[in-house]
Amino acid sequence: MVTLAERLGFAADTRLLIVHCDDLGSTRSANVAIREAFDASTATSASLMVPCPWASSAVATFAGEDVGVHLTLNAEWEAYRWRPLTPAPSLRAPDGGFRRTVDDLWAHADLDEVRGECRAQIKQAFTWGIDVTHLDSHMGPLQLRADYFEIYLELAREFALPLRMVGASMERAFGLAGRKLARAAGVIFPDHFVYADVGSRTAIEHALRELRPGVTEVYLHPAVDTDELRASHPDWANRVADHAFLTSEPGLRALAESAGARLIGFRELRQLQRGA
Amino acid sequence: MVTLAERLGFAADTRLLIVHCDDLGSTRSANVAIREAFDASTATSASLMVPCPWASSAVATFAGEDVGVHLTLNAEWEAYRWRPLTPAPSLRAPDGGFRRTVDDLWAHADLDEVRGECRAQIKQAFTWGIDVTHLDSHMGPLQLRADYFEIYLELAREFALPLRMVGASMERAFGLAGRKLARAAGVIFPDHFVYADVGSRTAIEHALRELRPGVTEVYLHPAVDTDELRASHPDWANRVADHAFLTSEPGLRALAESAGARLIGFRELRQLQRGA
Repeated sequence: MVTLAERLGFAADTRLLIVHCDDLGSTRSANVAIREAFDASTATSASLMVPCPWASSAVATFAGEDVGVHLTLNAEWEAYRWRPLTPAPSLRAPDGGFRRTVDDLWAHADLDEVRGECRAQIKQAFTWGIDVTHLDSHMGPLQLRADYFEIYLELAREFALPLRMVGASMERAFGLAGRKLARAAGVIFPDHFVYADVGSRTAIEHALRELRPGVTEVYLHPAVDTDELRASHPDWANRVADHAFLTSEPGLRALAESAGARLIGFRELRQLQRGA
Repeated sequence: MVTLAERLGFAADTRLLIVHCDDLGSTRSANVAIREAFDASTATSASLMVPCPWASSAVATFAGEDVGVHLTLNAEWEAYRWRPLTPAPSLRAPDGGFRRTVDDLWAHADLDEVRGECRAQIKQAFTWGIDVTHLDSHMGPLQLRADYFEIYLELAREFALPLRMVGASMERAFGLAGRKLARAAGVIFPDHFVYADVGSRTAIEHALRELRPGVTEVYLHPAVDTDELRASHPDWANRVADHAFLTSEPGLRALAESAGARLIGFRELRQLQRGA
């Protein structure tokens, strides 16, 4: 079988690495940190939370960069809130914002409203002029349940975009066949996904030391230290640590070099997806 | 003619003062500062920007306080954005957020969409459990054009709420007859309004030194100094100055005392409005 690396024009044993930043647009703090991670030539891709207050301002500062849509169906923080783009009553907590947990979403959301809201977010990103490179799922609801995954896959096909995909072991844990379904649908995704909590430097270091041939995606949640970040995000210190890992030396970049990794973005996968 | 002061149960020559904080819910910084201004027993009323990211979190911290709805039809900052609650395409800038200026709003907004959005904001505030005491208009579009003022007045009647009203000289400047129309409609509003830019300590000091009998409303835009405030609000220093004016000694409270003012909120006006 021809590997993804080969299809991308590399030898089969090449180690290709996507260094992805999540939560672009969620706060000013995230926007600043992700910009610095790109400027440090460490981050190669990011995904935008379209419904958030700082999303549209990221458009200009990330022009031409590898940016996808971080499909957003939750607003997890207590005080700092964002709302769906569409009316979507089933996606809303009593205060009108998105529900705070994936469980609460899954328990109440109407699938047509999920599909409509996700499509609206992608269309809004295109309207803003973003050359959307891929799709992923904020907090994972679209990736971890079969009926939601169908929508995720449907949108990937509709917009001819590659997807983030959880690893094979997590698929087993949730009883999913996402990779198989995506392959059957001709939707491209990285070979390996390094699952890591916010601030999981150790997990990423470990994965980079044992980096396998093929395309691996690691993802981080960098943010700079601000009053608002501290007040709104209980995990702020881990986000600040992710920023340091991406922008300080020696950090992720040095580790990737030691691993012999070649950095790429999702744009290369999208090119393949579109048969270019 | 019986004066408003008399209708409120005071002698006709009583100087009554509403010390109002605008922009509650707009930022965490505003929420913290306004809470401190209430705690200092200086601020007596505030109004909430329902569509903003920090609005719903203000509900719990201002339970029982004198809080109205700061009807919001603009999102004036470059990078930090908020959107209508309703679909309302005519109220939106190209990025989907509210238009940045009153001019742009007036040039494009459909009046039915204005009415629908304002009504949705008031209803959302009630749904959150806020005992809404009054209405006012963020950046003033509802107060400064006759067709918009009709909606403002209609909502006051529908929800039996008192209104902020611009002063007589500003009415003349805009060719409006708002006070006359409101009186005819039986809608209550303070006698005097001290128009002041953000951070206009001097204008407010002057007004308090010459405080007239009857009900005067002064309004401020307090915010505490944070990275996000500085990054999003070019007028941040004036907002921080408003906070100091409200919470430091000698400040607004001492001036009000020297003027012999009695502090009240909009709740007293609402009681009258509702014939209680």
